[in-house]
Amino acid sequence: MIKDNKKALEYAKKNREKFLNDLIDFVRIPSVSTNPDNKSDIQHAAEWVSNQLQYLGMENIRIMPTQGHPVVYAESLKAGKDKPTALIYGHYDVQPAEPLELWETPAFEATQKGENLYGRGASDMKGQIVISLKAIEAINQQEPLPFNVKFLIEGEEEIGSPNLDEFITNNKPLLNCDFVINPDGGIISDNLPTITYGLRGLAYFELRIFGPGHDLHSGTYGGVVHNPAQVLSDLISGMHDVNGKINLPRFYDRIIPLDENERKELGRLPLDEKFYQSQTGAEVLWGEKGYTPYERIGVRPTLEINGILSGFTGEGSKTVLPFKAMAKISMRLVPDQDPYEVKQQLSDYLKQNAPSSVTWELEQLSCAYPSLTDRSAEPVKALEQAMEQTWGRKPVYRREGGTVPIVAQMQRTLGVDSVITGFGLPDDNLHAPNEKIHLPTFFNGIETFIRYYYLLGSIKISM
Amino acid sequence: MIKDNKKALEYAKKNREKFLNDLIDFVRIPSVSTNPDNKSDIQHAAEWVSNQLQYLGMENIRIMPTQGHPVVYAESLKAGKDKPTALIYGHYDVQPAEPLELWETPAFEATQKGENLYGRGASDMKGQIVISLKAIEAINQQEPLPFNVKFLIEGEEEIGSPNLDEFITNNKPLLNCDFVINPDGGIISDNLPTITYGLRGLAYFELRIFGPGHDLHSGTYGGVVHNPAQVLSDLISGMHDVNGKINLPRFYDRIIPLDENERKELGRLPLDEKFYQSQTGAEVLWGEKGYTPYERIGVRPTLEINGILSGFTGEGSKTVLPFKAMAKISMRLVPDQDPYEVKQQLSDYLKQNAPSSVTWELEQLSCAYPSLTDRSAEPVKALEQAMEQTWGRKPVYRREGGTVPIVAQMQRTLGVDSVITGFGLPDDNLHAPNEKIHLPTFFNGIETFIRYYYLLGSIKISM
Repeated sequence: MIKDNKKALEYAKKNREKFLNDLIDFVRIPSVSTNPDNKSDIQHAAEWVSNQLQYLGMENIRIMPTQGHPVVYAESLKAGKDKPTALIYGHYDVQPAEPLELWETPAFEATQKGENLYGRGASDMKGQIVISLKAIEAINQQEPLPFNVKFLIEGEEEIGSPNLDEFITNNKPLLNCDFVINPDGGIISDNLPTITYGLRGLAYFELRIFGPGHDLHSGTYGGVVHNPAQVLSDLISGMHDVNGKINLPRFYDRIIPLDENERKELGRLPLDEKFYQSQTGAEVLWGEKGYTPYERIGVRPTLEINGILSGFTGEGSKTVLPFKAMAKISMRLVPDQDPYEVKQQLSDYLKQNAPSSVTWELEQLSCAYPSLTDRSAEPVKALEQAMEQTWGRKPVYRREGGTVPIVAQMQRTLGVDSVITGFGLPDDNLHAPNEKIHLPTFFNGIETFIRYYYLLGSIKISM
Repeated sequence: MIKDNKKALEYAKKNREKFLNDLIDFVRIPSVSTNPDNKSDIQHAAEWVSNQLQYLGMENIRIMPTQGHPVVYAESLKAGKDKPTALIYGHYDVQPAEPLELWETPAFEATQKGENLYGRGASDMKGQIVISLKAIEAINQQEPLPFNVKFLIEGEEEIGSPNLDEFITNNKPLLNCDFVINPDGGIISDNLPTITYGLRGLAYFELRIFGPGHDLHSGTYGGVVHNPAQVLSDLISGMHDVNGKINLPRFYDRIIPLDENERKELGRLPLDEKFYQSQTGAEVLWGEKGYTPYERIGVRPTLEINGILSGFTGEGSKTVLPFKAMAKISMRLVPDQDPYEVKQQLSDYLKQNAPSSVTWELEQLSCAYPSLTDRSAEPVKALEQAMEQTWGRKPVYRREGGTVPIVAQMQRTLGVDSVITGFGLPDDNLHAPNEKIHLPTFFNGIETFIRYYYLLGSIKISM
């Protein structure tokens, strides 16, 4: 029998300001994982999470070191052995805020304007962590938790979780669970609750091209030396064909073809050309021929240039022929592509196409496998029910373009699937200036999780 | 009858340390013309030149304002109307020193190591200015100057002399002369005196590509938006064909074909593949098919990428899809190409090739016409003689890949040719870290100019 969630929902309504203030505190910690200067902020953020877990009466709370940033762990296993154990995943680290000059409010101040709270990490994913914690707080104030829960909140998601796989492998008994709840998956719109069952993987590289021994005068030597910035441009240009297909050898070989039924189902999502135009500000879309805009994000791989740097880029003119050029290049992968194989494919492409007039180096900066979750599992259906009760409509199911490395890692290492959800909107400016979270959706998220936690007390464990 | 130059040459030998100290003083002024932060250094450098001219007994010395950095003017017209009047051109500004971390000694300290003096501007062209001044000092100590001289030392050469054309046009009577001496042309090696009779022009641009409205998450939106860094790479890649030819419409139309005799003569210069390999550190050379390495620099135009910037370029990884990309692109031009026509050609190329998924902006940052000087003119032959007396061998004649905008401006505005010479070596690291001047060549330069100035007292004016 499902316990009554009414009092917990009332508590959540009454304590909205308190919950919001906690989120503001959290966003104000500039826990940028890629920047060594933010090391103490990373520690501060881990302690903030750990203090929250303490306040919720969790047990066995630990800030566990890794080779990089620490993982925060906690558990509450008092519901009993006949109840399911969910592992709630999150990350307390955030993307860099640069370029700072494009922020309308300071990136790490957490500024409320209308229905939104602005700040780096507000949506990705400090807001989502706070939702999962505050739903527990609301229940805790009434009665013991109806399910067993473990928390794993890492600090390296935004740099590709380089140490998490080893951490999970080394802590299998501690992390043992029936399924994972992962609220890093987002929501399509504020009135369309969303469950994500597929995620793209990631292979991220830095490519460096070296030409002459040093920077040269473009007049004195222009004409005899192959310009590394030009070579880099040639190589990048050759990575796509005219149809937007990626030109790396064997790149598409492992991709599971899209099932016509799934294609039809995904085609019902309200994610048309106009939607992407409005979200991106791009008037004319672009991408792989033969696929809809949504399919190009959800079920097809991409290759993006995340950054390029060469020569003189300051104000004015400098007539230099640069001696090197660099690009950050990353691929989003779909099942069953393998990020380590992709490195070999890129490397082969460079071997085949880089001219003998330059040398090159390729470094893999991060790696994540793509993943798929079974949509018919009970923990997924329970979430569907909780969402329907909160929004008054069934959620949609989708495959997401982003990467949540832990999902594939949990599948590969612990053998458990993840229920992927979340309450971040497409226009939350993730990884971009002016990131924000929509507060009505944030509070709906807390209500959903209260209902979900109660429902988890009565499901059969069968994932 | 040529006056005896012996005493002046002796004075120069005795005062080498004094001359070197003056050069060190001058190099220590960081007169970087492109950087607004160095404005007071620019003023300081102009005053330094003006003080030197005062010390030489020049008259009518002025630091003349322009819309940008000032021009230093001075004259000595006491040789009489039957003697020629030479205008000595120079520039007291220097290139930026960045990237600073690649300098082995501080860029603006002027450090002597062995036979070289290291510092930004030591060779380009503070050393050359000091040579022209010290040769006058050596004569002055003995007797009045045997020819009439005017000095025009500008402060914007390294940014393309944007205000010099207007300055010359507005000061035609003041600058009236028989020919120009321009010591900004360099020397092929320390035992091969060189007279330059051709220079390439320059058309320098900044191209900006705009895609989506703001930076995007490469997972959430990668697949539907045309990446501006990728578009920029495509556009750059298309600017050359597989034979190293430049793909802009009508780009080669105005080029004067290379005369077979001139080609043969230039072919005798000791500037082979090995020379360029050793100077550039590039093991495999590259360039337009059908031309020798020297021809590709001296008589053929080029298009170089001087810089590219887009997206995230810091340490580590950031999964951003950048909203813009920028490139600095410049062409070296040969007679009779026109830098303003080239802007139209580049603009037409972009109109034909940029996809509708992006917008673009093109800004022309600097402009200079190419030039040619008559090799048989008397002031050229006098320099040949002075060089032969100093080095014990005849100088070679060459066309240079670099740009000295004033040469074409003097031809177009004052109607006078320039004698282009100089004592900067190919490995002086012009525009690059660890710029230096070879001191034995610097002192040979002073001796050459002492002899040249005496010879100018007896030539017929016929340029």
